[in-house]
Amino acid sequence: MNIRTKVPVELGSRGYEIIIGDGLLEAAGELLAPVLGKRKRVVIVTDSAVAAAGHLKRLEEGLAKTGVSAGSVTVPSGEKSKSWPQLAEVCDQLLAMKVDRGTLLIALGGGVVGDLAGFAASIVMRGIDFVQVPTTLLSQVDSSVGGKTGINTVAGKNMVGSFYQPRMVLADLDCLATLSARELRSGYAEIAKHAAISDAPFFGWLEDNGGLVVTGDRDAQAVAIEHSCRTKAAIVAEDEREGGRRALLNFGHTFGHALEAETGFGEKLLHGEAVAVGMVQAMDLSVRLGLAPRSDASRLASHLRAVGLPFSTTVIQNAPFDEDRLLAHMAHDKKASDGRLTFVVSHGLGSAAVLNDVPADQVRPSLGI
Amino acid sequence: MNIRTKVPVELGSRGYEIIIGDGLLEAAGELLAPVLGKRKRVVIVTDSAVAAAGHLKRLEEGLAKTGVSAGSVTVPSGEKSKSWPQLAEVCDQLLAMKVDRGTLLIALGGGVVGDLAGFAASIVMRGIDFVQVPTTLLSQVDSSVGGKTGINTVAGKNMVGSFYQPRMVLADLDCLATLSARELRSGYAEIAKHAAISDAPFFGWLEDNGGLVVTGDRDAQAVAIEHSCRTKAAIVAEDEREGGRRALLNFGHTFGHALEAETGFGEKLLHGEAVAVGMVQAMDLSVRLGLAPRSDASRLASHLRAVGLPFSTTVIQNAPFDEDRLLAHMAHDKKASDGRLTFVVSHGLGSAAVLNDVPADQVRPSLGI
Repeated sequence: MNIRTKVPVELGSRGYEIIIGDGLLEAAGELLAPVLGKRKRVVIVTDSAVAAAGHLKRLEEGLAKTGVSAGSVTVPSGEKSKSWPQLAEVCDQLLAMKVDRGTLLIALGGGVVGDLAGFAASIVMRGIDFVQVPTTLLSQVDSSVGGKTGINTVAGKNMVGSFYQPRMVLADLDCLATLSARELRSGYAEIAKHAAISDAPFFGWLEDNGGLVVTGDRDAQAVAIEHSCRTKAAIVAEDEREGGRRALLNFGHTFGHALEAETGFGEKLLHGEAVAVGMVQAMDLSVRLGLAPRSDASRLASHLRAVGLPFSTTVIQNAPFDEDRLLAHMAHDKKASDGRLTFVVSHGLGSAAVLNDVPADQVRPSLGI
Repeated sequence: MNIRTKVPVELGSRGYEIIIGDGLLEAAGELLAPVLGKRKRVVIVTDSAVAAAGHLKRLEEGLAKTGVSAGSVTVPSGEKSKSWPQLAEVCDQLLAMKVDRGTLLIALGGGVVGDLAGFAASIVMRGIDFVQVPTTLLSQVDSSVGGKTGINTVAGKNMVGSFYQPRMVLADLDCLATLSARELRSGYAEIAKHAAISDAPFFGWLEDNGGLVVTGDRDAQAVAIEHSCRTKAAIVAEDEREGGRRALLNFGHTFGHALEAETGFGEKLLHGEAVAVGMVQAMDLSVRLGLAPRSDASRLASHLRAVGLPFSTTVIQNAPFDEDRLLAHMAHDKKASDGRLTFVVSHGLGSAAVLNDVPADQVRPSLGI
């Protein structure tokens, strides 16, 4: 076990630490000791792919070393598990395992597991403690920081959920070794986003080192994850419930969600890929509104292209997309208020802001970018 | 409209006021103005019985007076609506009505509607504002104070839910006029409970005036509701998430829940009726443990009998009950920790405490009381 760094998420009594390192699962019992206290039993929620990759066994063994026994609930892998029936199933299974208010839940997996298990933890017995053990690059830099949980409904993605902070996050670099190159790139898109909205020097570092991150260089991954978590943690600490600044984290997401909705939220276009294209679209909108220099739009698109991410709707299967359908998806986005369109726009790389009341006609030219 | 009193629930940024009075629904737009701000649209969640009693129409008209329009979702009346499918249905209907993060939800009804709609409000879009308009005596003195929401699952009652505070509570005495005598008595049990756990002088007042409360005397009802809300609000303010003192509000509930489970959570034994019998059982346990004087047990039973509430398991349909089944229900109660039995015991009328690790054999003699 090798702890590389700890990133604090400063949220008062709900604050917690993100531990980044190697071999953390094998030392889970020791690392979670401050959270576990006298508890000697936990429940793990994971998915079939994560279990098949061996992470569940590693975690169970890491807990057993300090005498902690673990029950587990395994859901099917994939976005479809973020559903009402699966939420009810997970809660009912947890209750059937006789969890009580003192039980600790461990969410082991990517964003889907984190969102679903975190939501379940927030409502079973009106809330039990939980810990995130994110196994993908995307979840290590994004969904494990900030306490957003949720499921998808017929009305859209993450339409039902809660703000519920974990007690600790273990980001084990070993887990990244089992990811495909495409999954690594998808996670990388959120790292690039964190740089794009609030840290120009970090964006410069990514231009030099992003290729190492997506090809599996441990040291580069550790730096990128730490920096990314610090950026997000700072924003979340200012605005836990997304009343203001936290909305900046949605850069590229309003455009991206619309593309995901049109491609079925699945393998055709992964979340990070949609965010990559969405950022390019949001940057184009920003340039046309006179808010950001064209050169920054080019830098962003070039960098995404360099690391192998899609950088234009034209490279997505199914393109071109119907503009009216994309706009309709955007209007239903839950960040919308009273039906007006709201976007996170760029003021140049490293700076972003929320812009309300954007007329649809101003958005259209960016949809085909 | 006549405001009789306002009871503050002191929870810092989550604090709110309970307004108690007559004709409040007809003045809802005016009363909710501080919460509504510039909002001119709300969604109401209610049940078919409440709508049929005319309360929905009164509320809609009261809102229309200040130009506030209201959509509504009506669920079937009864405990069965506190279910996974109904929770999903309410959330999906709210989302289909295009609620956004700024929408105010009004829960209009008894405890079932309050628990279900409050839970929905806490998770739709990860939480939207809501207001409680309790229409039963039970909900006016109990579930509308303190922010507990939830649904029932196969594992038991309120096994899934959230702590989520309303922005305001309107307790309109007019609504009580449409209740049956039995429903009034059921609500009265929680009033008696509040006195029994923390206010001996109030218990004395109830011995003199309880009959007026359950037969519809407005002034007596107003006093009882105010006093009851103040008692509960003080306890909740000390311990919002039931880590300590709030557990006292479960006096009579561990026994009562077991009886409800055996009678199907329905018309055979209403919640307040179960609590009434449960309090007598808890008092008997307290006396046998040497914690409370036998004379107080007699006073409690006599008073419940005087207002027409059941005061012994022997007067319940289906009695006698199987002791092992009742104990099994208690062991699954979510206040249990690691399988040990926990009870709220009395130290005499007006004083109560939590007692952990009670062996089943000490409980048995109280089960047939």
